[in-house]
Amino acid sequence: MHTSLLHHQDTIVAPATAPGTAALAIVRLSGPDAIALCNRVFPAKDLQAQPSHTLHFGTIRDGDDIVDEVVVSLYKAPRSFTREDVVEISCHGSNYIVRRLVQLFIRQGARMAQPGEFTKRAFLNGQFDLAQAEAVGDLIAAESETAHRAALHQMRGGFSRELHELREKLVHFASMVELELDFGEEDVEFANRDDLRTLIRDLHRVIDGLIRSFDLGNVIKNGVPTVIVGKPNAGKSTLLNKLLNEEKAIVSDIPGTTRDFIEDELVVGGVTFRFIDTAGLRETQDTIEALGVQRTQEKMRQASLILYLFDATDTDPAEIPDVLATIRETGTPVVPIANKVDQLSAVQRSAFQSIADLLFLSAATGEGLEALQQRLLATVDLQEFRTGNTTVTNLRHYESLLKTREALDQVLASLDAGVTGDFLAMDIRQSLHHLGEITGEITTDDLLANIFSKFCIGK
Amino acid sequence: MHTSLLHHQDTIVAPATAPGTAALAIVRLSGPDAIALCNRVFPAKDLQAQPSHTLHFGTIRDGDDIVDEVVVSLYKAPRSFTREDVVEISCHGSNYIVRRLVQLFIRQGARMAQPGEFTKRAFLNGQFDLAQAEAVGDLIAAESETAHRAALHQMRGGFSRELHELREKLVHFASMVELELDFGEEDVEFANRDDLRTLIRDLHRVIDGLIRSFDLGNVIKNGVPTVIVGKPNAGKSTLLNKLLNEEKAIVSDIPGTTRDFIEDELVVGGVTFRFIDTAGLRETQDTIEALGVQRTQEKMRQASLILYLFDATDTDPAEIPDVLATIRETGTPVVPIANKVDQLSAVQRSAFQSIADLLFLSAATGEGLEALQQRLLATVDLQEFRTGNTTVTNLRHYESLLKTREALDQVLASLDAGVTGDFLAMDIRQSLHHLGEITGEITTDDLLANIFSKFCIGK
Repeated sequence: MHTSLLHHQDTIVAPATAPGTAALAIVRLSGPDAIALCNRVFPAKDLQAQPSHTLHFGTIRDGDDIVDEVVVSLYKAPRSFTREDVVEISCHGSNYIVRRLVQLFIRQGARMAQPGEFTKRAFLNGQFDLAQAEAVGDLIAAESETAHRAALHQMRGGFSRELHELREKLVHFASMVELELDFGEEDVEFANRDDLRTLIRDLHRVIDGLIRSFDLGNVIKNGVPTVIVGKPNAGKSTLLNKLLNEEKAIVSDIPGTTRDFIEDELVVGGVTFRFIDTAGLRETQDTIEALGVQRTQEKMRQASLILYLFDATDTDPAEIPDVLATIRETGTPVVPIANKVDQLSAVQRSAFQSIADLLFLSAATGEGLEALQQRLLATVDLQEFRTGNTTVTNLRHYESLLKTREALDQVLASLDAGVTGDFLAMDIRQSLHHLGEITGEITTDDLLANIFSKFCIGK
Repeated sequence: MHTSLLHHQDTIVAPATAPGTAALAIVRLSGPDAIALCNRVFPAKDLQAQPSHTLHFGTIRDGDDIVDEVVVSLYKAPRSFTREDVVEISCHGSNYIVRRLVQLFIRQGARMAQPGEFTKRAFLNGQFDLAQAEAVGDLIAAESETAHRAALHQMRGGFSRELHELREKLVHFASMVELELDFGEEDVEFANRDDLRTLIRDLHRVIDGLIRSFDLGNVIKNGVPTVIVGKPNAGKSTLLNKLLNEEKAIVSDIPGTTRDFIEDELVVGGVTFRFIDTAGLRETQDTIEALGVQRTQEKMRQASLILYLFDATDTDPAEIPDVLATIRETGTPVVPIANKVDQLSAVQRSAFQSIADLLFLSAATGEGLEALQQRLLATVDLQEFRTGNTTVTNLRHYESLLKTREALDQVLASLDAGVTGDFLAMDIRQSLHHLGEITGEITTDDLLANIFSKFCIGK
């Protein structure tokens, strides 16, 4: 249990469900007075006398006024999310009632919770480490299968376990090296330098793998940055709308669970593709010239994938190779797409056959749409991810891993230079420090404030 | 218990909280298989073996895939909202997870619930009557203190109890009259005609009171229809914005519970005022002429309150009485308001003193704003309402009450005409029928479908 526990003995309250009109809403209390405080306005029974993990029907009263008929969920410390006493009040899903309840509890002595404060307390009380706490936020925000899976894996401690094993081994060596220092002039070596070198190399390999996984993790969490380039009449927005409508048709079958479709975001096969605006290209007619414009070049380079779309009824096949060559200079993979192919004769169609990897598409008939979705998905290598390997999705973790690797390099350099044990120990401790930042063994108030302020209220 | 119970032995599922990103969301199941169905994807423990009203932590699994870590609330029939077995799954508040859960339960054999189907089952299973069921919907939609109080009173059976007592007395008399019929030619009178007359008059009085309360009830539920009239430069929209901002400042202090402010709706002292657009008046400069326009006249007549606003720095006090006289022809109460009074000298100000009930206002300094709020509130007589008398808020109930009164009039007429017992019994039964429509003793499938389809999913 964390020492900061002493600092937050007050009881916090916040709505825990999304605002809006619905069957139910939940108001959540956590802290030493949560049960007593609720009981003061819930006369139906003595909640203090009830066992943990039980449900109680009754009315919440504000003086003589009934605020609502509710069900109270009782979680007694430490068997709760925050490991404190927690009361959840399930009321009718009206913003008015939720507001009345929160105001009532504040009048009774509770304090309005800060964003993420419930999760922060859970972390400070040892419910989980920092990487797991951060994953709670990611899990709520996840809108695709892969983002959900990555967040859940991290929340359930997959990443933390991996880091923990690395730390254990380093801690062991650090203690050995430090033990040598106690013997001062005797020149003993408890820590075999070759073993240490091997261990560092092993750790290096694991950390390199985690660092590499961030490219995929970033794509999983934030979407694959994709640009569609092509002349204004090529049908770019028609294509995007067509794809978005397909997605809507798939996921909107359950009323009340529809996701907010973001204009330029598309989920295909569990992966989000984020379409970057290439306004620059829309303004000019000449494709190659437009592709040369610096701003467009930059966007294409930043993207992980380029869809090059042209109107097949209005394009000379001989032009295409030059255009593709210009695009490929950016180093970003490109999918060439011939649009409006439903309007081509068989002869016209065959004129395009020689272009490698060309995808024939018709937004009107739907031809090629499924093939396009396959091609989108093929750009993301989910193999590693699917096999359950840890994928780093968090920029903060990524940066700490880079610093850990740097520190490990320093350990190797120190070994090569044959420095004395005290310097070596310092280098190892530095690696441990950066690893510890990820899971929260090492924290500062600023860091915690920064992490949890991004959470929503009630979490 | 209602006979239709036999028709819905399937298990239904729906999200019960508002969509959006939040700490928690709830998916609700009701029906004979609710527990078994949940248990199939919740391996942590045998839910069937657990007592009612308990909470269970564990994971929901879709095959090998973990969908989420959840808490399951268990309500065993008949100790639940629907009086069936009910399971509520409290998951992380992500639309993606809610969608996955609902899809999973549908694959396991549950059916997506219709809007209001949980409440409909509660009604059909005798949890409450129809007026109470309808109040559940009103309660969720309530955005003001009075609307909330009226809905809660009705949901807790206040209105139903009143109707029940009326029905009891009528039923007693109907049976007496019908008993007479059994004695055929013997000319006995079990039901004293004078007592019946007195009873009908008593009922009449009570029902008249309920019918009269609908004016207030309608205002409570839908807001006081209010128009602001005045020349274009009088400061109408500035005033409205000022009032709206005051309201926002009062109710928005709790993050996540802010109500969606509707452009022309204002809650003052727990009462909603709904401002009707008077575009017609904005277009013309001459106030009296504009007030004469038929469309404006109509809007003023439909309103419950007119605010007449003029720019005191630009208006001859001698004009005002004529304008007010024109407005008062509509029969709607009017509050005359002199705006921009902060720019008046004491002498200019005194020139307006002779106008009765004139309110001095300055949107700039805030002078008169509180007095205006008091004047708004004074137009609504909440006295009856505050003393806990039943207020009819539902148009359907209002119409049934009108029909009941009509039928009671017929009973009186029949008594006066000295008709035979069988006709009298028919008239009484007609009154009972209309009273029964309100509480749902008399229902049709169409009526029920119509009522519950207006509910949200998951309620």
